[in-house]
Parts: sequence; C-alpha cells; structure tokens
Amino acid sequence: MRFFSDNAAAVCPAVMDALVTANRLDTAYDGDALSARLDGAFSDLFGREVRAFWVTTGTAANCLGLAALCPPTGAILCHEQAHIEQDEAGAPGFFTHGAKLTLLPGDGAKVSPAAVEEACARVRYDVHQVQPSALSITNATEYGLSYRSDEVAALGEIAKRKGLGFHMDGARFANAVAFTGAHPADLTWRAGVDVLSFGFVKNGGMNAEALIFFDPDRAAAVPRLRKRAGHLLSKGRFLAAQLLAMIEGGVWLENGRAANLAARTLADAAGPARLVHPVEANELFVRLTAAEAARLRAAGFDFYDWGPGEARLVTSWDQDMDAVRRLAAAIAAL
Amino acid sequence: MRFFSDNAAAVCPAVMDALVTANRLDTAYDGDALSARLDGAFSDLFGREVRAFWVTTGTAANCLGLAALCPPTGAILCHEQAHIEQDEAGAPGFFTHGAKLTLLPGDGAKVSPAAVEEACARVRYDVHQVQPSALSITNATEYGLSYRSDEVAALGEIAKRKGLGFHMDGARFANAVAFTGAHPADLTWRAGVDVLSFGFVKNGGMNAEALIFFDPDRAAAVPRLRKRAGHLLSKGRFLAAQLLAMIEGGVWLENGRAANLAARTLADAAGPARLVHPVEANELFVRLTAAEAARLRAAGFDFYDWGPGEARLVTSWDQDMDAVRRLAAAIAAL
Amino acid sequence: MRFFSDNAAAVCPAVMDALVTANRLDTAYDGDALSARLDGAFSDLFGREVRAFWVTTGTAANCLGLAALCPPTGAILCHEQAHIEQDEAGAPGFFTHGAKLTLLPGDGAKVSPAAVEEACARVRYDVHQVQPSALSITNATEYGLSYRSDEVAALGEIAKRKGLGFHMDGARFANAVAFTGAHPADLTWRAGVDVLSFGFVKNGGMNAEALIFFDPDRAAAVPRLRKRAGHLLSKGRFLAAQLLAMIEGGVWLENGRAANLAARTLADAAGPARLVHPVEANELFVRLTAAEAARLRAAGFDFYDWGPGEARLVTSWDQDMDAVRRLAAAIAAL
Amino acid sequence: MRFFSDNAAAVCPAVMDALVTANRLDTAYDGDALSARLDGAFSDLFGREVRAFWVTTGTAANCLGLAALCPPTGAILCHEQAHIEQDEAGAPGFFTHGAKLTLLPGDGAKVSPAAVEEACARVRYDVHQVQPSALSITNATEYGLSYRSDEVAALGEIAKRKGLGFHMDGARFANAVAFTGAHPADLTWRAGVDVLSFGFVKNGGMNAEALIFFDPDRAAAVPRLRKRAGHLLSKGRFLAAQLLAMIEGGVWLENGRAANLAARTLADAAGPARLVHPVEANELFVRLTAAEAARLRAAGFDFYDWGPGEARLVTSWDQDMDAVRRLAAAIAAL
Repeated sequence: MRFFSDNAAAVCPAVMDALVTANRLDTAYDGDALSARLDGAFSDLFGREVRAFWVTTGTAANCLGLAALCPPTGAILCHEQAHIEQDEAGAPGFFTHGAKLTLLPGDGAKVSPAAVEEACARVRYDVHQVQPSALSITNATEYGLSYRSDEVAALGEIAKRKGLGFHMDGARFANAVAFTGAHPADLTWRAGVDVLSFGFVKNGGMNAEALIFFDPDRAAAVPRLRKRAGHLLSKGRFLAAQLLAMIEGGVWLENGRAANLAARTLADAAGPARLVHPVEANELFVRLTAAEAARLRAAGFDFYDWGPGEARLVTSWDQDMDAVRRLAAAIAAL
Repeated sequence: MRFFSDNAAAVCPAVMDALVTANRLDTAYDGDALSARLDGAFSDLFGREVRAFWVTTGTAANCLGLAALCPPTGAILCHEQAHIEQDEAGAPGFFTHGAKLTLLPGDGAKVSPAAVEEACARVRYDVHQVQPSALSITNATEYGLSYRSDEVAALGEIAKRKGLGFHMDGARFANAVAFTGAHPADLTWRAGVDVLSFGFVKNGGMNAEALIFFDPDRAAAVPRLRKRAGHLLSKGRFLAAQLLAMIEGGVWLENGRAANLAARTLADAAGPARLVHPVEANELFVRLTAAEAARLRAAGFDFYDWGPGEARLVTSWDQDMDAVRRLAAAIAAL
Repeated sequence: MRFFSDNAAAVCPAVMDALVTANRLDTAYDGDALSARLDGAFSDLFGREVRAFWVTTGTAANCLGLAALCPPTGAILCHEQAHIEQDEAGAPGFFTHGAKLTLLPGDGAKVSPAAVEEACARVRYDVHQVQPSALSITNATEYGLSYRSDEVAALGEIAKRKGLGFHMDGARFANAVAFTGAHPADLTWRAGVDVLSFGFVKNGGMNAEALIFFDPDRAAAVPRLRKRAGHLLSKGRFLAAQLLAMIEGGVWLENGRAANLAARTLADAAGPARLVHPVEANELFVRLTAAEAARLRAAGFDFYDWGPGEARLVTSWDQDMDAVRRLAAAIAAL
Repeated sequence: MRFFSDNAAAVCPAVMDALVTANRLDTAYDGDALSARLDGAFSDLFGREVRAFWVTTGTAANCLGLAALCPPTGAILCHEQAHIEQDEAGAPGFFTHGAKLTLLPGDGAKVSPAAVEEACARVRYDVHQVQPSALSITNATEYGLSYRSDEVAALGEIAKRKGLGFHMDGARFANAVAFTGAHPADLTWRAGVDVLSFGFVKNGGMNAEALIFFDPDRAAAVPRLRKRAGHLLSKGRFLAAQLLAMIEGGVWLENGRAANLAARTLADAAGPARLVHPVEANELFVRLTAAEAARLRAAGFDFYDWGPGEARLVTSWDQDMDAVRRLAAAIAAL
C-alpha cells in the first residue's frame, strides 16, 4: 500500500475515456476542436476571461509562467522550499535566461507578507542589484498547507504595490480549493494572482497541466515561448481532452476531495502531536521514530522518510480507503 | 479526405492499448518498469548498446540532442530547409544557449558532403569565428527524400574528421527505413551518427518520441537537461509504453511502410513530370496549377499549397487506401 | 609599413591628453562628471536628444544595442558578411539569449531594400517560425562601402513598416560621414535608425566606443544589461573622456577624413580595374596576383591576403602619408 | 576628503606611464607583445605556470571564471554577501546561462568549511536538484576580512573532495596579500584555488583586471567566452600594459600596503569597540551614531552610511596620509 506520491498514481477513468474519444484526426498543435475549447472552459471555471495553455509538466507550466512575468535581469521571490527552487533542476534559470530566485523563509513552506516586504526592502534600487520582478507561491504548499483567500490577497496587494507579477504554483490547486472551500477565483485573480500553474497530473491526469493567465495580455509571448521550449505537441488534442474531461465534469474537484479525505483520515488518527504541519491538503508530515516507521512498513505501508524522525505520506485521488483506514488504525496503535 | 500532415493523424491501436495497460500505479518520472525497458528495447533494435530517452516532441528530442553535441559557442551545420531552422521557433538557440545554425544548400533539403566541406572550409580557426561543432541532417528530409546508408556514411566520415557531433532528425525515420530497406543500424551509428531523434508521433504515436544516443557517454548530461527543460514527465510510463508498443511489436516499421505505400500510389499516378522531388517516404510535392488544385479540392481532397504551382500531400500510417486510390485516379485524370 | 587594420593603430593625442586630465578622483561607474556630459555631447552632435553609453568594444556596443531591439524569440536581419555574423564569436546569440541572425546577400556587404523585403516575405507569421525583429547594417560596410542617407532611409522605411528595430554598426561611422559628407543625423535617426554603435577605437580611441539610442525609451533596459554583461567599468570617466575628447573637438571627423584620404590615394593609384569594391571609406580590396603581393611585401608593405588573388589594405587615422604615397607608387608600378 | 571607495581613485603613475609607452602600433586583440608577456609575468609571481587574461572589470573576471567552472545546470556556492550575489546585477546567471548561486551564511562575509559542508549535505544527488559545481570566496571579503592560507586550504580541501571548482574573487587580493604577508601562491593554488580574479582597478589601475587560471586546461574555453561576451578589446596592449606595470614592478603590493596602512591607522584610532569587523584590508565598518557621523562630515570627511548606526570607510592606494591622520584624530575625539 503506497503512500509515496500522488504524481505516480493511476489516471482517472474520465481522462482515459477522453483520450479514446479524442482519437480521431484533427488539426495539429493547438488548432484542434478540443484545444479551442480550453479558454472557454477555464474562463467559465474562474468567472472571467482567461487564457489557458496545455503543457505536459508542472515545471513547464511554472517556468513558462515565470518567464512571462520576469525578465532575465529580474528576481523571483519564492519560498526556500518552493518546488521551483528545490525540485526543478534549475529550470527557472533556463526559461528566464538567468533570472534569480530570491528565497524567503516561512513555516510549512508558506510565504508571509512580512517576508516579502523584507526581501523587497533589502534591495537597493540601482543597477548593481537584481530587482524583484515576480512573486511565486505554491498552493497547497510543498508541506501541504493551503493558503486562504485572504492570505493570498494580502500577498497580492504587496505584489501589486511593488510591481511584482504574481504566480501561483498550483500543482495541488485542486486540493487547496477542496480544503478551503473557496471559489477558485477567490484563491487566484480576485486575490491578485496573475498566472496559475493549474495541476492535473497529480490529481488523476496522465500528462496534461494547465497554465492559466488571468490577464490575457500577459500571455502574449507564451505561445512562442512554449513552442521554443519544445512544449507544443503535435497532437495537442490529447492534452486538451484530459483537461476538459476533468474541468467540464467537475472531476478535478472530486478527485481533490477524495485525496484530501484520505489524508484527513490519517491525520485524525495520528493526532496533533505527531503532525509536523497542519494537514490542509493531501500530504502528511508525521513524527515517527525509526522503530515506528519500520513497524508500519512491516505491515505493508510504503512512504518516504523525511529527515530524521519524520516521514511524509501522500494520498492520491484513487487511494484505496480501506487501506487508508488500516493505515490510520496502525498509526493510532503505535 | 485529408492529406495535410501525418502529425495530426489518429493514434494506432497498439499505442492506445499500451496506454490502458500502463494505467496502474508505478514509480514516478522514469523510475517505472516500462521506462526501465527502453534502453534494452532500442539496443536490441539497433544492435548495440544505446541510451534511450522518451520526450514528448520532436523539437525537444532534436534540441536536447543538439545541446549534448554543441556548446553555446559552437555552430550546428544543417540544411537551410531543416526543421530545426524553419519550424522550431528558434528552439535550438534556446536549448544550446545561443549556438548558431550554419545553413547549407542542397536539393530536396538534402545535405551533400561537398556542402559540409565547403561550410567548414569557410571558417577561419580563430576566436572571432564560431566554430562548427555539430552536423544535423533530417532523414527522411523535409522534402521526403531518404538518405541511403552510404550517403549517411559519407557525411559521418566528414563529421568524424572535422570533430563534429552528428545528429539525425528522424521525425520520419521509420519512413526512411521502410523506403531504403536498410537496417536501422546502417542508417545511423554504423554510418557515424551519434544521436538520433527517432520519431513516433507522426507514425501512430500519441505524444512520445525517442532520443537515442549511440554513445552512452555523450548522454551524460541529458537527464539533467531534460528535467531542466520541463520535459521529465511524472507519469513517464505512459510515454515509455507508447515507444515499447511500437518498437517491440514492429509496429513502427509496419506503419512506416503503410504511409509510404500510400505516397507511392499517389506518386505513380502523378508521374515524374509532376513530382518536384522523388518520393522516397510519405510526402509528395507535386506541380499543380491553381485550377487543378481547385478541382481536386472540389472532389473532396484536402492538402496544402506549397508555393505557386505546387502542393504538398502527406500520407499517414492510417491513410484510407480507398481514398488514396480515388485521389490517385483524380490526379491521373487531371 | 603596416596596412593590416585600423584597430591596432596608435591612440590619438587628444585621447591621451584627455586620459591624463581625467586622472583624478571622481565618482565611480558612470556617476562622474565626464560621463554626465555624454548625453549632451552626442545630442549636440546629432541634433536631437539621445541617450549615449560608453562601452569598451564594438561587439559590446552592437550586442547591447541588438539585445535592446530583439527578444530571444526574434531574428535580426543582417548581411551575410556582417561583423556581427562573421567576427563576434556568436556574441549576438549570447546577448540576445539565442535570437537568430537571418543572413542577407548583397555586393560589398551592403544590404538592399529588396533583400530585406524578400527575407521578410519568406517568413510565415506563425508560432513555428522565428519572426524578424530587427535589421542591422554596417556603415561603412565590411568591404568599405558607405551607405548614403537616402539608402539608409529606404531601409529605415521598410524597418518601420515591418516593425523592425533598426541598428547601425558604425565601427567606421566616422569614415562614412567623412566620405558621404552627410550630416550624422541624416545617416542615422532622420533615416530611421534607432540605435547606433558609434566606433572610436578604430579611429584613434584607446578603448571607448559609444552606443547611441535615438529614442531614449528604447534604452531603458541598457544600463542593467551593460552591468550584467560586465561592461560597467568602475572608472568609467576614462571612457567618457576619450569620447568627449574626440566628439567635442571634432577630432573624430578629422581622423576619419585622414584615414579616408590615405585610402583614396591608394585607390587612385590602383585604378578601377584592380578594385574589387569602390573605395568609400578607409579599406581597399584589390586584385593582386601572388607575385604582385610578394613584390609589395618585399618592398616593406604589410597587408592581409583576402582570398585568392585579392588583398585587403586598411588605412588608419595616423597613416604616414609618405608611406602611403610610396605604396601608391609601388601599386601603380606593378 | 573622500573615503567612499577605492574603485574611484586615481590611476597610479606606473600605470599612466605604461599607457603612454604602449601607444604605438602593435598587433590587435591579444596578439601584441605586451599581452604575450602576461602568462610569464603571472607565472613568475605565482611560482607555477598559469594562464592569464586581461579583462576590464571584476564582474567580467568573476563571471568568465565561474562560467569556466560551472555548467548551466550547476550551482555556485558563495557567501550571501558576496559581490557576485549582491553587486553584479545577476551577471553570474548571464555568463553561466542560468546556473544558481547557493548562498552561505558567515560573519564578515567569510565562508566557513562547515557552511560549505552543510550546503553540500542538503543537496540530494538526483536529477531534480541542482548540484553544486563550484565554490567562490572573496579575499579580502566584502567586509574587509582576509582569509589566511590555512583557511583557504581548508576550503580547498572540501572543494577537491566534493568536485567543486574553486574560484577566488580577488578584487582586493593585493590587500589580502599585504595584510597576511602570505605568498600569493599560498593564498591560491597551493590552497586549492583553481581560478583567481586578480583585481587591479581598485588598487591603482585604470581599467584592467587579470583572470588567472592555475590549471591552464581549465582555461581552454575562456578565449572564446571572453570574445563572445564582448570583452576582447582591439587594443588589448593597453590593458596588458597596466597589469605588467603593476606586477613586474611590485607596484601592486606597495599600493595594497599603502591602502591597508591608511585603514589600520583609522582602525587603531577607532578602537575595537567601534569596529563591526576586524580590519584586515582597506575597509572599515565602524559604529557611528547619526550625530557622530554628522560631526565627521561637517569636518569634511565623506563616507557611506552602512545601515543604521554604522558607516563604511574605504581607503585607497593614494589616500592622503595627512587626511587619514586628521580623520583618525577626529574619530578618536568622538
């Protein structure tokens, strides 16, 4: 019973069905009938006109979005544990032609307004220092915390005041929406977010992510950047199909809720003392001695260690709830 | 009846079946059981140890391959009609951090040994001029010509002598193999090719291409470059599955033959006088007056104009042979 | 007696004097009193408000200028013999982060309106092809031809119509002004030029070139780009001093005239039949058999061969006119 | 009386004389007789064969050096107050095509072995995380501390063990040598340093810095990188002349000693309680109330504030010792 990561889970039936349905000749690249529906589908979801692009990875979504917000001479403010800093092999430096990531502290990989203000205040406005151009946050965070609408809005206000483009890495956006109960608009453009990497792969997709621009003008260079980075697929309809299947049917939110429920079940069993961070999405960081971890593994539960005395458990959209309940019981019994 | 491009065709059954079969939990990225079989499957096909990577586009395959062969300060020799020059939005410049494409002339987008020698001879060996570092050819070419083994070998000999890495854009490699009847090894590493972009998408795949290094040492940086370019997919098993389904079952060659047969049928009907280039793969460039083109379109055949008085017709692995015969008849009757 | 290149000549007295005078404490970078006079001095010369930057090389001037005009995804149209293509080690690709040089034909390294129109017409407006963003010409050209005002204006008109930034590599701008007798404004901004690399080093400077923006708005990013490329010198006053000494005293034009006169003297002696190109600046390309070249060298005259049966002779601001007359006589006597 | 920065000071007589002497025709770029002597002069100084390049700025020296040590996919470990991080406008990201700076803590901008070990230990060896490729330290540091030979050697040992290229930013290398009394070799290659940016401009030069490779093999790409970055000057002899004048005559060390003496005089007057950092080169960071600072300025002494309650004073090679003594007295009298 694996609790390693949601990014290796199976693909959900709606997506598989959509791929089969999409399997007939259509125009190449994004000239097909399905890709043509993307802007509309996401505009409906977000309650305003947006520009939506399919890409195949979260790294591509993040970095194309950041390249649209930050010139090579600029800096992107992000948490020191942000995925773009820790787990993308320097891709932001590649896509932005060398822009800098300025790292912010914060519990649970969460960026605070104070941290952003301080980072901006440290920079002299002259030609010698790299000037901040963008702010990027992850929602839910790398440690499974969900920003509430007002938290995002507080950051959005600073971003606007400082002239920073505001990007949200939403690899687990569905989980954040499911947890907070907020309208997707309130977590994004109404709170000042300019660009969203809207994750689908961790949530039941096969290989399609969405890159959403809330201000279509900001997206002007993106079609060219996407092509130039080798991310314009010939048979793009198979990516559009995945996104539409999950958006138009509401599957994205159902899947997010299912994964969150599994995590919540485990969190409740673990109890607050074991939890390193509040559980606000589909990830748990729990305190486990080596002996406890060994006991759980001996009982058939797989997960990653996360530093000494800690472990990370991630639940998926399709996590078997029976296994979840057994793991919950095993944790409670430790 | 569409003869626009093979890159928009349907996905072949073997691939769709493989996707369904692959749809269960496995390790993320390229740590899964299917990806682990790639090197072996392609090594078997090519008769030597190779290193194989899945990527989602031909542009990514070409440019990751070229980035491994050419430093930012170098030049890549290629035909002036090469896909990397004409149709990749400057991606080679992006992936190589600004290396130069040095353009070569040649009929039918084919590079001749003399053109390579001349291009090299024009460069002074000093610090002011960009030195050639790589040679890239396309097989079958952008105009549907197939290099024979000895033609590749003649270029390979120059590449070796001049210290150029040798890349082959094989977006239609299957068609070239099918046409020439050559062993894949004879068209590539035995002829001096270092890196092959082995195309599957135009040949019945969904969104998986293979990047093959015949010298595994040359591939050392590629895993990192692929990740950094946002091309390391979480659920890579769905790309590996496509490639294995087509390679291990021989589907790639069957599909290539089917597309070639359709093209040959049309070429024979058109006759030599109409053909701008010999038909050696699955593309035809035919001389058609505007009136003739209009007549064919009125009869329900779709294709691209290709400059004044010319048209391009491309056939796919699944081209309906009945429609092909009807088009052949219509062309013959012009 | 050396006729190799003007870029190795001595530094003129006005410049050496200015360096001595500048040798006292002042503010660092470009915060000094001399740098503060640059914009004004060049604005006076060109008869309109300009923004002027010192840099140390023509390559830096050209490439910072081009980086301000062309995004990484764009193309720069230039002659196939342009210095930026032939002799800058790929620096345009470095400074622009991979933009492409699209090469134009033309006698004497001169770009014609027709060549620009044709290059633009060949590009499809789509996401697959790199779109032209800038035009760069060299005046005087790499073969010593000078564009007249109306010739520049014809190119400027196309550039404006096509939305291309217009850059002039004026490594030998003084020679072109001296030859044509045109006002510097007529050869540049009145003819549509946006950015000028105004050369001083070949014309008697030590290590200062000027980068001139006729539209100050276009220069907004340049201070940062210059610093980021390591081209913001601490003691910038020693560069400003050189430029001011040559501009404010008119030395730049005197030096240009002197070099041109030497070249004209040689050209007249050679006669039209020997001249590969008209002599319109300070370079001669002359037809010489190997025996003739050997004879001149035996008489103490040094110069470069320039392909079989041709030689290049370049004269400097300080070319000894006695030696020039002796060489002229020797050529006439061949 | 200015104590702002050494990088705005006058040029020393030996350098001015050398410029005058160099003012005759020679071969362009670095083909001249003076540039030809550089490798030898620096090899003599360092007691081993080195490869030496002139460049015009410390930023260029640092970033060309780092580009030779670190691939685009790598990381450079440096202090969070390092000049390459704080004051070079992101130039390392430009020259390395997007490599990352990993920031280390440490008092007085000094890097400790423990900080390097910890930074390395934090990185997982996989394709997702950027791997450290180089270590860069500044000697003397940005806060005027000098590394001793054994301190450098301790870092050099780690660098070697971890496979990191080791770069030293020696913008004030002369001051560090003067302070420590160490042989230049002991502070560099004997301690494991691979590449040194050897500063001359802050120390009495006009616009020449030296980039030294202790392993000539590592320098193989540098001539091309220098040219491509627009840093290969036509009349390079005027840079070589500056370096030779300061190295061959021992002026570099005399000047460093003079600047240090001035700083020491001020430091002794200030007393330990006022000093934020030990004074081990030519910079003082002193605690001054706003009133005290105002009093000194009223007496004619100029310097920068450095955060609340602190000021920075920098002395130059040509600091007037009379003024220094007056300032010392004024500080002592506060």
